[in-house]
Amino acid sequence: MGTEQLGSARERGGRDLASAVEWVAVDWGTSNLRAWGLDSSGEIAFSRSSPDGMSRLTREQYPSVLTGLLTEVHEPLDVLICGMAGARQGWLEAPYLDAPADLRTLSRGAVTPDMPGAQFVPSILPGVCQREIGAEDVMRGEETQLLGLSALIPGFSGLAIMPGTHSKWAILEGTTLKRFSSAMTGEIFELLRTHSVLRHSMGGELDGEERDIGFDAGLALGLERPERLTATLFKVRAGALLSGRSPA
Amino acid sequence: MGTEQLGSARERGGRDLASAVEWVAVDWGTSNLRAWGLDSSGEIAFSRSSPDGMSRLTREQYPSVLTGLLTEVHEPLDVLICGMAGARQGWLEAPYLDAPADLRTLSRGAVTPDMPGAQFVPSILPGVCQREIGAEDVMRGEETQLLGLSALIPGFSGLAIMPGTHSKWAILEGTTLKRFSSAMTGEIFELLRTHSVLRHSMGGELDGEERDIGFDAGLALGLERPERLTATLFKVRAGALLSGRSPA
Repeated sequence: MGTEQLGSARERGGRDLASAVEWVAVDWGTSNLRAWGLDSSGEIAFSRSSPDGMSRLTREQYPSVLTGLLTEVHEPLDVLICGMAGARQGWLEAPYLDAPADLRTLSRGAVTPDMPGAQFVPSILPGVCQREIGAEDVMRGEETQLLGLSALIPGFSGLAIMPGTHSKWAILEGTTLKRFSSAMTGEIFELLRTHSVLRHSMGGELDGEERDIGFDAGLALGLERPERLTATLFKVRAGALLSGRSPA
Repeated sequence: MGTEQLGSARERGGRDLASAVEWVAVDWGTSNLRAWGLDSSGEIAFSRSSPDGMSRLTREQYPSVLTGLLTEVHEPLDVLICGMAGARQGWLEAPYLDAPADLRTLSRGAVTPDMPGAQFVPSILPGVCQREIGAEDVMRGEETQLLGLSALIPGFSGLAIMPGTHSKWAILEGTTLKRFSSAMTGEIFELLRTHSVLRHSMGGELDGEERDIGFDAGLALGLERPERLTATLFKVRAGALLSGRSPA
């Protein structure tokens, strides 16, 4: 369970970390665990990340993983957690709020898991769900990021698109999450890249100029003929075969 | 390299197989090898199948696999092969015909691989490709099935949809394959079923009444909002979570 140190107040300025940090924010996702120590002005005093996401952990491992991640903190601190740690198969279930939801009420739905010792007082924030038949959807973690967006841009109303394994398309009105839809964009890309016949055509330089050209072409095709996705994808394979870039 | 016996003339009627069979038709695909012995009236005298598809074979293994599949045949016979055996990484490359293509010319593009002994004389039929930029496509095997369709329904003009790993949607006019498009329907279904987060929701009874209901609902949704495919798919997961059918 290795941790990666992204930076620390101690390194950056030699401040006394324990007194500078007021609370710790944690995004505990399926694949990754990220933590930020925040000082009294809301600035990031340190940050940590590790691959100890929910998918690798049993319920009993969460306290020791959290303690192991925050070894430099010695004062009692509140730890506010969002993400899959609050799923039913996570640390402790934090039942979903129903959309539309005023995100300022997220903290009211927080649950408090058992934590040995008095150093950390963890709370896990709920996710948001949408129960309407035919529009069923769930998020855990993004709702907290959306609350952050509403604080960064007060009064923002509109569509927020959050790329990822399951990309969230969310309609936000101020602090209210009106409705949202998850697209399996990231997961399907990864499956096609690693497991499908298209993997034979994905061995080239991924960061060259052609990447931008290809991305733009894909966006244009997707907007023009979105209903043809499963056929457009096969052109990647056929184009490579016919141009001789790949064995046929 | 086991073979499965689907039936034989010997079993069915006690005829002398060697004299009944005039030639052998073979569909040699990526994952499977299928062979049919045909008598002078075009009836199937025997059939064989094995999992020795192209993906399992080196170029050198094809002759012995074919001989091993046709152990009951002792007379010299023509063996007409379609499918991935004619791909560049197959037995011997049979270069694509270009669409639009009159499928009656398929045999002119056949290639003759080396075959030790005089018992079998194999020919591999070409596939068909479409080189137009933005509509690049390839098929190997389906073109031969389409020629069969044009023989079964003389004068047929219209769309033929051939389900599979890479489903082919082909416009046929008599014996002419005008144009076609491959959709990754089967491969994407298999990836989602076995590797994606949706696999957690696919453990139920697959052959019950609900299967037909779900299939009809999926068809209706796909026709109504085809552009929402990647989002509609996630409803499978979210619906299971919210109904309590799956751990969250």
